[in-house]
Amino acid sequence: MKTVKRVVILGSTGSIGRMALEVISKHRDEFSVVGLAAGSNVDLIEQQAKTFHPEIVGVADEKAARELGTRLGRKIEVCAGQDGVAAVAAHDSSDFVLSAMVGFSGLLPTLRAIERGKVIGLANKETLVVAGSVVTEKAREHGARILPVDSEHSAIFQCIGGYEGSQVKRIILTASGGPFMGKTGEDLKNVSPEQALRHPKWSMGRKISIDSSTLMNKGLEVIEASHLFGLDAESIAVVIHPQSIVHSLVEFVDGTLLAQMSHPDMKGPIAYALSYPRRLNDTVPRLELETIGALTFHKPDAETFPCLGFAYGALKAGGTMPAVLNAANEILVNAFLERRIDFTGIPGIIKRVMDRHDARRADTLDAVIEADRWAREKANEYIGKR
Amino acid sequence: MKTVKRVVILGSTGSIGRMALEVISKHRDEFSVVGLAAGSNVDLIEQQAKTFHPEIVGVADEKAARELGTRLGRKIEVCAGQDGVAAVAAHDSSDFVLSAMVGFSGLLPTLRAIERGKVIGLANKETLVVAGSVVTEKAREHGARILPVDSEHSAIFQCIGGYEGSQVKRIILTASGGPFMGKTGEDLKNVSPEQALRHPKWSMGRKISIDSSTLMNKGLEVIEASHLFGLDAESIAVVIHPQSIVHSLVEFVDGTLLAQMSHPDMKGPIAYALSYPRRLNDTVPRLELETIGALTFHKPDAETFPCLGFAYGALKAGGTMPAVLNAANEILVNAFLERRIDFTGIPGIIKRVMDRHDARRADTLDAVIEADRWAREKANEYIGKR
Repeated sequence: MKTVKRVVILGSTGSIGRMALEVISKHRDEFSVVGLAAGSNVDLIEQQAKTFHPEIVGVADEKAARELGTRLGRKIEVCAGQDGVAAVAAHDSSDFVLSAMVGFSGLLPTLRAIERGKVIGLANKETLVVAGSVVTEKAREHGARILPVDSEHSAIFQCIGGYEGSQVKRIILTASGGPFMGKTGEDLKNVSPEQALRHPKWSMGRKISIDSSTLMNKGLEVIEASHLFGLDAESIAVVIHPQSIVHSLVEFVDGTLLAQMSHPDMKGPIAYALSYPRRLNDTVPRLELETIGALTFHKPDAETFPCLGFAYGALKAGGTMPAVLNAANEILVNAFLERRIDFTGIPGIIKRVMDRHDARRADTLDAVIEADRWAREKANEYIGKR
Repeated sequence: MKTVKRVVILGSTGSIGRMALEVISKHRDEFSVVGLAAGSNVDLIEQQAKTFHPEIVGVADEKAARELGTRLGRKIEVCAGQDGVAAVAAHDSSDFVLSAMVGFSGLLPTLRAIERGKVIGLANKETLVVAGSVVTEKAREHGARILPVDSEHSAIFQCIGGYEGSQVKRIILTASGGPFMGKTGEDLKNVSPEQALRHPKWSMGRKISIDSSTLMNKGLEVIEASHLFGLDAESIAVVIHPQSIVHSLVEFVDGTLLAQMSHPDMKGPIAYALSYPRRLNDTVPRLELETIGALTFHKPDAETFPCLGFAYGALKAGGTMPAVLNAANEILVNAFLERRIDFTGIPGIIKRVMDRHDARRADTLDAVIEADRWAREKANEYIGKR
């Protein structure tokens, strides 16, 4: 008899959360959904609750939570606010918590799940970017395993497989290059949010789409990878691979590379984390190599897309610097989407905020939260001055 | 303290044998050479013996063995003939036997090593092609592990890694396409042995170079893979990949591919088998993806290169048919190298020999040897008639 895996999804109405529920709905004999948490999309979370019958639902927005409670009646426990989301994350009866909330807000609920020793499917990269030391230390302490859900980190994880970490020389993250690959700094001055959101290969949420267009997404992934796989900045390379077929590679000490490949479809890595160590049948369509044309690889344009370099800089500086990078970036992406700054203002202001920050130790949550708060304030201040 | 692995090399003067000794000479603290066997190249085997100080040396050619015995004096035991080679294969003090003799002649000594429960590094694909059932059964019986040395099978083996066989949907062997890729049947009528020996990507022995130019090499690899990985013909695909960077791929049940990549250099897979499960440092030069241009993949031209289809046919027919395919091919490659037949005579006569053969059970060595003898006779008969 199969064991049913009991799943909680944090961020169930987002892009990753919805795809996870799609995977689960095809494998109802292997998974049950015991908890859902989301921000404020009452209609969608109501529909999800009625389809998957969780024991508990958390809604960050208090008004939305009340509305949902009315609609669902007494059958399902509805919790409100950040505490409500945290209650879902820590819910007793789950085996697996998919952490797929956007940005810094995903950190605290993910920590709650880690403290309960859950297996974590980590799609929220900010959790490791801003609080990598705290999170990995807590995971060790509570025996919580963290499985990557980002396609690149899942690829690395799959390539390392059963091989010992000491056999890994470096990892190579692939990047599609985003919608502005080949453009010059001059070209980028007047790009609109609509252009930046139009990712050539992956269908993703708004925040991550903008991050892809600046290459900050790849930068955050470099920092995330350093925590997931215990590697320093020198052992993590980035290569542009416009076809998004090779999702990342591992270089072993003998000079061999292993690469993970598939059609670009987030259901692949989501399903792999959900069903690990097994694989679910036919998660993504078969890749017929004869049909994909040429696979190409080239160096990132560090000058036109400085965010990648900022992330390497933050990783090397260590301590609170990655939290500052991330917080400033969240503020600036939002400002760009609201047309308060232009596209080049994102790296421009991030650099100014980082230059003003002296990295401190980031081994407590308070230190990280304080750095995050400071960076948001500084970024807003510089936006106001433009 | 490191354990020193005690190695026997069957076929030490051939291309694979020499590269294996090159690998070992860079890692003298990890390996000692306890036995060498070769055909008749007295000068080279003398030099190898004086460099690596084996306990025993076998030389297939009896006259060459006597000459070597005189040259080496009493320090090293020299054995003559097929029995001498078998004695090296079965030598007590080895842990690992590299089976790298060319063609059918590699089968018996490899079986001797298997019967002694050695770990086998198998470069001699004919061993599994002609006697796959006998060999895998004996390996199971005597607890002899068979590690692949062919670059494609090593790639598959590395990609499967610690994953369960049930998670593998199919494997995809890559083929460079050989020197005649893109040519028509008409073009091939007048190609010379020199042209056929000029492989674009790999530096290899003569027999395997001709087999690459006919795609028979890939066909033999398909049969070899079916035994090594327990897969049927439908679960083994072949794709042409002219750059020879991706050495083969595994498709898992979820639609994911893992690929093994490196510069084309046989030292990679040789070293991997020698040092398995560890990897030796810097066996092949680092592959910088930015420098390799485009990776392309396309379907093999089954009409112009019918040998690949013959091999699939032999695998599906089973029993003694693969032994017949292999024996006829050995005779015909030799006849082509001696300019007794033209290039298209290789597939032409193989087809005629196979058409005349009724496959029988191949679960005894005698059945295999008889099929091999019969096919050689038939092939020679058809050569004579041209």
